[in-house]
Amino acid sequence: MNESPSNKTIADHPHPFESLYKRLSSIAPMDEDAWQAFSSSVQVRTLESREILWPSGSICKYLVFVKSGLIRSHSMVSDRQITSTFYPEESLFYDDYSFLSQQPMTKTYEALEPTELLLISRERLLQLFDKYKVFERIGRLAVEQAHIKMIEAQERISQWSADDNYHYLQKHQPDILQRVPQKIIASYLNISPEHLSRIRAKVAGRT
Amino acid sequence: MNESPSNKTIADHPHPFESLYKRLSSIAPMDEDAWQAFSSSVQVRTLESREILWPSGSICKYLVFVKSGLIRSHSMVSDRQITSTFYPEESLFYDDYSFLSQQPMTKTYEALEPTELLLISRERLLQLFDKYKVFERIGRLAVEQAHIKMIEAQERISQWSADDNYHYLQKHQPDILQRVPQKIIASYLNISPEHLSRIRAKVAGRT
Repeated sequence: MNESPSNKTIADHPHPFESLYKRLSSIAPMDEDAWQAFSSSVQVRTLESREILWPSGSICKYLVFVKSGLIRSHSMVSDRQITSTFYPEESLFYDDYSFLSQQPMTKTYEALEPTELLLISRERLLQLFDKYKVFERIGRLAVEQAHIKMIEAQERISQWSADDNYHYLQKHQPDILQRVPQKIIASYLNISPEHLSRIRAKVAGRT
Repeated sequence: MNESPSNKTIADHPHPFESLYKRLSSIAPMDEDAWQAFSSSVQVRTLESREILWPSGSICKYLVFVKSGLIRSHSMVSDRQITSTFYPEESLFYDDYSFLSQQPMTKTYEALEPTELLLISRERLLQLFDKYKVFERIGRLAVEQAHIKMIEAQERISQWSADDNYHYLQKHQPDILQRVPQKIIASYLNISPEHLSRIRAKVAGRT
């Protein structure tokens, strides 16, 4: 229905990168020519659980889409491992600081489950920015979204209690609580595993 | 010298917005057509010292260029006024969170000196993004730079001492230390005026 050859897009065909196409075109609609140029440069990478995608100290040279599985980023702060972010399926990310500045990463990126990634190199992406206005726009909007998220996260971390941050996670990424070991959840909330147990007991008592 | 009609740009003519032209074209070179579209939409606003540009709670609807003078942003955290950022002449800024999300600002923006601003509305900017690829690029690169700066500032704030942050300010924005009352410098370093005096005495003793 509502179909004509002229408005037929890649979404009408099964495609191994279809979820990536949907994610990108939710940011800005692109025509078939732009998508072909993009998708022909996509590389596939699979990781086992606990395999490292990028170690800290390396330079981020790829934009990554999580086709399936789960990645987390973490860093050492005063000898404690702090989890920064979880990237479940359909996440689109790079190490913001390193990808944009080409300085070494301070975080390590690790798979928490068997994971399949689609990657596009920074070099190729810059070529696509030059050639297609739509990628310039997708790039702008993606960085704007990352920037807003960082401002919001900064406010949560500096002004909210661990309890509030637990409830936020429970509301916005409930599956993470099921998929990730408690020790890692505690390192994300920057609290001890014992403190996390107390919060969970309180929540269980409440329901 | 090296002049021909074909490569003549606005920079060859005196223009009231010339410093803005230079700032934008340092991000990405633009042709005369794009610059005319931009500059014809620029509004001028002057503020007296201590006049408020935007009160917290309002929604940011303008991109601002500081032609001359000095703006600072500040917010209340647990009843203490914290200075977030200084924007001296040639700064290009908006309230990142509010401009991008159209949610109310949590910060207040205030002139610390008699200040002249050039403004372009968000509405007009979005039209220019649609029409000119170069503005899409300038928008992307400007947000990327803001994003990197925020990551760097976050690291400084969370991991550096007040002494280190004072030396950073002294190195990167030395004129701010001359132009701004000590009370405001202390609120930027998130320390008491007494603590700032001790740091300054130490620095004076060292030189």
